[in-house]
Amino acid sequence: MATETHSLKLNTSKKFEIIDITSQINDLINIDNGIISIFSKHSTSAIVVNENEPGLLKDFESCLGNLISEEFNYFHDRIDNNASSHLKSFLLSSSECLPIKNSKLDLGTWQSVFFVELDGPRSNRSISLTIIGD
Amino acid sequence: MATETHSLKLNTSKKFEIIDITSQINDLINIDNGIISIFSKHSTSAIVVNENEPGLLKDFESCLGNLISEEFNYFHDRIDNNASSHLKSFLLSSSECLPIKNSKLDLGTWQSVFFVELDGPRSNRSISLTIIGD
Amino acid sequence: MATETHSLKLNTSKKFEIIDITSQINDLINIDNGIISIFSKHSTSAIVVNENEPGLLKDFESCLGNLISEEFNYFHDRIDNNASSHLKSFLLSSSECLPIKNSKLDLGTWQSVFFVELDGPRSNRSISLTIIGD
Repeated sequence: MATETHSLKLNTSKKFEIIDITSQINDLINIDNGIISIFSKHSTSAIVVNENEPGLLKDFESCLGNLISEEFNYFHDRIDNNASSHLKSFLLSSSECLPIKNSKLDLGTWQSVFFVELDGPRSNRSISLTIIGD
Repeated sequence: MATETHSLKLNTSKKFEIIDITSQINDLINIDNGIISIFSKHSTSAIVVNENEPGLLKDFESCLGNLISEEFNYFHDRIDNNASSHLKSFLLSSSECLPIKNSKLDLGTWQSVFFVELDGPRSNRSISLTIIGD
Repeated sequence: MATETHSLKLNTSKKFEIIDITSQINDLINIDNGIISIFSKHSTSAIVVNENEPGLLKDFESCLGNLISEEFNYFHDRIDNNASSHLKSFLLSSSECLPIKNSKLDLGTWQSVFFVELDGPRSNRSISLTIIGD
């Protein structure tokens, strides 16, 4: 049984951006079988698992926009003008804990792991990967 | 310290169905103490923890229907007519990471683990269980 | 490789309360590096990671109130008058799985771990901490 840690760095180019990080994660895994904690170290971003279909990724963006208004008079906007980005992160969560099999994420056929930028563009977004297994 | 993996298979019979999988998971656990990753390998489903009260399960269904419209003109519906199912999965998440104690899920008195079918009926839904502990 | 478990107990004083538990968790960790499962054993509460800014915490409360009506005629309210609290927990989730580094939660600069009380005031809320690592 062993522990393995990695840090994945990303630059984002838009306010909202959903980036498939599946293959970047797979390239880093050395442990054969176990679990991986995927954690974004930013409170205006999220980690999610779903299907990588370009139309669906646009639907995700409009869905979040419908649930969390950009226009509301938020308290946090008096300090930093990004309350709606935090609220989207709060709903989606900044972590996923997933299975590893044969040194790869053990996902279903139609699943990818995504980093969701909710307050970009930003440089040097950091995602912590911690793997435990055999 | 050891790793243990299982695959739980389910058939669902309705478009929306919330199935209590607590006892099926408990029956599979051999490791005494540790953590379990419970992961649905489908992007139109979810894993959640809450109370198994029949009225509340109906409230969950109407709550999701209120948050995610079935009527919206989604991009993904041009390819596959199930965008709203993906969006519900996106909000709820397809995984939970929970504690194991004495070879059982260490839940509170009023908690159960549920598989949420969001695009059924489907046969052979697969839930991956990965347990690490002593 | 070792497993470590703790139970964190909290009393809450309001219907909705968001309590930063980062330092209480850090004080309990002995394992150097690994992952921690943080799990609330109650289905009217949640565990989330975000920024501890007082205005933002008020925004979280109003955001949840906007998404989940208190006024709806819920089935669960015939049995126990707290359906909206369960529905908020259902959306947010009662667990987080996070990285541990140098015997502390490995969070970003602007991140804290919060227990979210959704149906207080309550005494003896219990949060299960399970750590696996070296």
